[in-house]
Amino acid sequence: MKIIILGADGYLGWPTAMHLAVRGHEVLAVDNYSKRQTALEANASPLFHNPDLVQRSRLLREAHGASIHIEIGDCTDHAFLRSAIADFKPDGIVHYAEQPSGPWSMIGYDQARRTLENNLGSTLALIWAVIHESPDCPIVKLGTMGEYGTPNIDIEEGWIEVEHNGRQDKFLFPRAAGSLYHTTKILDTDLLHFYVRMHDLRVTDLMQGPVYGLETAESGELDALLPHFYYDDIFGTCLNRFLVQALVGEPLTVYGEGGQTRGYLNIRDTVRCVELALTSPPSHAELRVFNQFTQQFSVRQLADLVCAAAPLADLPPVSVATIKNPRREPENHYYNAAHTGLLELGLEPHLLDPSVLAAMLNRLSTYRGSVDPSKIQPRVSWKSRG
Amino acid sequence: MKIIILGADGYLGWPTAMHLAVRGHEVLAVDNYSKRQTALEANASPLFHNPDLVQRSRLLREAHGASIHIEIGDCTDHAFLRSAIADFKPDGIVHYAEQPSGPWSMIGYDQARRTLENNLGSTLALIWAVIHESPDCPIVKLGTMGEYGTPNIDIEEGWIEVEHNGRQDKFLFPRAAGSLYHTTKILDTDLLHFYVRMHDLRVTDLMQGPVYGLETAESGELDALLPHFYYDDIFGTCLNRFLVQALVGEPLTVYGEGGQTRGYLNIRDTVRCVELALTSPPSHAELRVFNQFTQQFSVRQLADLVCAAAPLADLPPVSVATIKNPRREPENHYYNAAHTGLLELGLEPHLLDPSVLAAMLNRLSTYRGSVDPSKIQPRVSWKSRG
Repeated sequence: MKIIILGADGYLGWPTAMHLAVRGHEVLAVDNYSKRQTALEANASPLFHNPDLVQRSRLLREAHGASIHIEIGDCTDHAFLRSAIADFKPDGIVHYAEQPSGPWSMIGYDQARRTLENNLGSTLALIWAVIHESPDCPIVKLGTMGEYGTPNIDIEEGWIEVEHNGRQDKFLFPRAAGSLYHTTKILDTDLLHFYVRMHDLRVTDLMQGPVYGLETAESGELDALLPHFYYDDIFGTCLNRFLVQALVGEPLTVYGEGGQTRGYLNIRDTVRCVELALTSPPSHAELRVFNQFTQQFSVRQLADLVCAAAPLADLPPVSVATIKNPRREPENHYYNAAHTGLLELGLEPHLLDPSVLAAMLNRLSTYRGSVDPSKIQPRVSWKSRG
Repeated sequence: MKIIILGADGYLGWPTAMHLAVRGHEVLAVDNYSKRQTALEANASPLFHNPDLVQRSRLLREAHGASIHIEIGDCTDHAFLRSAIADFKPDGIVHYAEQPSGPWSMIGYDQARRTLENNLGSTLALIWAVIHESPDCPIVKLGTMGEYGTPNIDIEEGWIEVEHNGRQDKFLFPRAAGSLYHTTKILDTDLLHFYVRMHDLRVTDLMQGPVYGLETAESGELDALLPHFYYDDIFGTCLNRFLVQALVGEPLTVYGEGGQTRGYLNIRDTVRCVELALTSPPSHAELRVFNQFTQQFSVRQLADLVCAAAPLADLPPVSVATIKNPRREPENHYYNAAHTGLLELGLEPHLLDPSVLAAMLNRLSTYRGSVDPSKIQPRVSWKSRG
């Protein structure tokens, strides 16, 4: 297949591009490095340097003989996307080109506006580029499990049958997110839902949980082919922060009671899920939704897993400290989300246990001297007024 | 009360400004005339000239002794809104500042982008101006009944209790709109819902049906104080088109089977509903939703009402013609929407009957010579590729 990946410099974009290229697909990787710029502005830096797309593409060719086409450009630029699609003639498009940080989107008006403009702008520009140039081309859009929030009912895969006053209909599952970033993904889904109905587009919306992991089959031992690893309060996930805290012997800082439960998955499963969505596309006029995660954990459970992993990586014992939650979110809530669609397509999950985390700790230990612990504590309050 | 009206030059903005000013409220009317510009670009013109806000404000003062402050500016400009709120210190803000045409938003990418940027941009700029300058100030946001679409279940007022697998929760009522414009109002609601939860804002979202009418108590006999009356395919409502077709003796053109059913209301009720929402504000952290209409009609029923009105206005008999529907929408569907919230606050509806339409026909007859029938037939297809 010929596949365009928008946002190919990101944490998931690059491993996805490698995975598809090494498996024989022809890949066009598109990015404008805007996340690197945003992270720089926020005083966030990855734990180790990631070469640019052109350099990594060369390294991949040397390692695996697989090529990736690179195009540097802004995915909110409709004319640019339109000509990329017209020239490359893709059989599938993966849309990762979004500002991905919840905390960053909560800093103030300017960050909220830029998140909204970038995320909705790229989705709308892509929708219309596809309508114009390739209306049969399936789109795989990265959404987030965060769109659903934490409802008091079971979370289904995107859709729910509602019976009300003796009548029935099927609707998008209700959504209420916990950050402006996650809210823009709700708006993306609404936009896609509209244009799927009006122009018979074929869209898969992958409601993905937080992803962990570094290595995929394609990166192997080459650190220069790894995705970026942020461990700060703004671009790092809570598991990344815990790993780095364990590495430097600091207590793992849990926000509030730590009962916040989400669905997680390994980065090896992300690249496979995206491939499965591409190779088994939905019908015309179908908005297909998969919940993309493999296991549910509370934040407290993740902290305990890191504590169990530390001795396996020859690190001293790790403690857990609870700190005031800078976010506005329930810390104890019901959470039970369906996630069978991708398993039915053939996903074979890589599950999380202390040995997986110990392997990450071992791989990261080279960079222990680069850790700046001051980047880990929360700087953004959810009630900030900018 | 001190009230800011954003989008005060619009069809509803101006009558609302007059209504509140004449009833003793201090009103700041804000607009940048962008709808006039958009309509001009679309070759749409109102049936008669509407003086600008400064001129109309002067005429209102002469007629009623009531003043309206005028500020010309772009409501997507956060700094402008913020200083307007800081200076005026409102007790309530009415947000009408949105590109309001469904067909215009469906012309192509550029119109979709401008609709999305203007409508979401003004809502986000306003939210943050309120967070910064006046977080207790209630916002009255004009939504649309079109957000709900035409579900196969009863439409409740904004919220629905869902029971699923033996558990329960309350959610925003499911929404699936029929144009990109209406979809932006869904996104507005999602944005407001998020910030209401994060910053304890007080928001009323008025899900309004199509409005008809010209005269309010304040305009009286002065045509220069009437709101604008568009009758074209892009900015005119279907009832406006029917009235003008009756006036010039052309058949009323119904899109498809004419079974499309919506909730309608008189412009006199709109201004009263907004006043009720302002004077009985919601609590902090409450997104209150009212369905703002008084009667349900199908398009075919509206056409029949206009046929019945014509002889009462001394016009010759009117016929009805069905034409191919340029939109993509169900033409026969279930529709039953709750609308008790505003009645409970004290709304006394002005109901639609042939005599109401005959009065409109009489008032419009002065301008019969200005009608350009070529503007009435649909130019925008819902499957257009721009």
